Amino acid sequence: MGDSQDTSFFIPCLAIVGPGLIGGSVAAALKAAGKVGQILGVGRDAAALQQAQQRGLIDQVASIEQAAAQAQVILLATPVGAMPELFAQLRKQLGPEVVITDVGSTKQTIVQQAKELLGTHFAQFVPGHPIAGAEKSGPQAARADLYQGRNVVLTPTKLTHDWAQQQIINLWEACGARVLLMDPQEHDQVLASVSHVPHFLSSVFMWQVASAENADLRLSVAGSGFRDFTRIAEGSAEVWRDIFMSNKQAVLQELQHIRAAFAQAEEALQSSDAQSLYEFLERAALARRLWATRSGFDE
Amino acid sequence: MGDSQDTSFFIPCLAIVGPGLIGGSVAAALKAAGKVGQILGVGRDAAALQQAQQRGLIDQVASIEQAAAQAQVILLATPVGAMPELFAQLRKQLGPEVVITDVGSTKQTIVQQAKELLGTHFAQFVPGHPIAGAEKSGPQAARADLYQGRNVVLTPTKLTHDWAQQQIINLWEACGARVLLMDPQEHDQVLASVSHVPHFLSSVFMWQVASAENADLRLSVAGSGFRDFTRIAEGSAEVWRDIFMSNKQAVLQELQHIRAAFAQAEEALQSSDAQSLYEFLERAALARRLWATRSGFDE
Repeated sequence: MGDSQDTSFFIPCLAIVGPGLIGGSVAAALKAAGKVGQILGVGRDAAALQQAQQRGLIDQVASIEQAAAQAQVILLATPVGAMPELFAQLRKQLGPEVVITDVGSTKQTIVQQAKELLGTHFAQFVPGHPIAGAEKSGPQAARADLYQGRNVVLTPTKLTHDWAQQQIINLWEACGARVLLMDPQEHDQVLASVSHVPHFLSSVFMWQVASAENADLRLSVAGSGFRDFTRIAEGSAEVWRDIFMSNKQAVLQELQHIRAAFAQAEEALQSSDAQSLYEFLERAALARRLWATRSGFDE
Repeated sequence: MGDSQDTSFFIPCLAIVGPGLIGGSVAAALKAAGKVGQILGVGRDAAALQQAQQRGLIDQVASIEQAAAQAQVILLATPVGAMPELFAQLRKQLGPEVVITDVGSTKQTIVQQAKELLGTHFAQFVPGHPIAGAEKSGPQAARADLYQGRNVVLTPTKLTHDWAQQQIINLWEACGARVLLMDPQEHDQVLASVSHVPHFLSSVFMWQVASAENADLRLSVAGSGFRDFTRIAEGSAEVWRDIFMSNKQAVLQELQHIRAAFAQAEEALQSSDAQSLYEFLERAALARRLWATRSGFDE
């Protein structure tokens, strides 16, 4: 979409609630692109806010009230569990031209909460989800190129203002991202599948290994395959607990499918059915290779 | 172990059966270290042998008979399913001072097969397993630094000649690896846990996603977490089928433990037990971070 970018796009004042890896990288990208004036940082973690300011990601620490009064765009980059309270606070202060967007990894629950808690301001809310690096956290991990070539899903509803949606599309394109539009329910199902279930499985596995009697011996021979397979399990427990709780139904449904596939592959091994085992492994390998090539994630 | 390396160690003629990624990287490392004279390449895949020769990994293509007659060390780097036939062929030709070693990912089955098929030459066999990159394959992926800082497990038995074991320890240390000695059974259990089970889960997951009706949409929003979690599923189906078949009991036992952990985590989500979910995720995250720091795999 490079050429179609609106060159007049500029945010005089952006407020970031929770300027950690995700929010801080938006700040860094927009500053690097010259698409933002002042950036306000809002949050409960004073040390993180100070780090964000020291790294130049935010210009000033502000309250949510100050953010609502001064910013044209408010980016909610907190764990999803913190959003309801923020919506409730914003409702009281928001002018009619302020756009709110979020980076939450689930969308149905957040859209529902926003509808209930933002009231008439709901049309100013553009739900979003950048698909990028959640395994590290904090402002020290933020970087201007985090979204370069990555996908960002927006899930506007029929009520969402077109101009608000366009503003957020411009914001993400200025960060180098590709914007996809989806229905909130569709988003939650596909993300349960390709993001939440892998995290669940990786964490279950890591937990099981660490709980074994001879855990140290096991971990001493773990190699690069183990490293990659478990990398996501390092993610913030708070963030992921909120994601799982917020997308519970879709995750449980996908886990059912995984359990069925697990049982089928296990049965092939149990019965020493080498041919079925081979076909299952080959299909997985081919699908992975095809994805790597097509997605641009080719290593 | 750097300082304790035997500087007189040198292999005048090394034969590599299956000079792909694993065998070819041994060739590259030993050549780079000046620890080998001639390298013979043995295999059924003529194109791969030619590639290995073009890349300078092997000096000459040879038959298994020629290898047995000329080499001081024979490295079996084929899928584990091909080993029994090689043992049977080698038994007939082997001189008393030739050392055989392998790189198979499972050890009990191979030790048992070697015992049966190598006869009196069994004491010349040093079972081995380098813990390094099985996700790519072929001689074009081989590189001299593949084993630098990596672990190699050797599982000699009481019958194994000490001088043969020392020769293979020298070989791997010359490749930059750290050598660990284990019991074959212990090796198979810990590898089932930290290598075979992750591959199984990654493949089950990749298979399930690719089999979904809206697979394309799902894959279009898959990000870096998905990339890392599924990378091992790209591995050769033939290699991994053989590994699973060869280590069936240990893998099935570990899968039982995984299923129990899976059910426990799923129950926490099902019952919206946010505290248990958090504790499980936090324990996994802490264990992963500790491993990354201790193992030197810190990214």
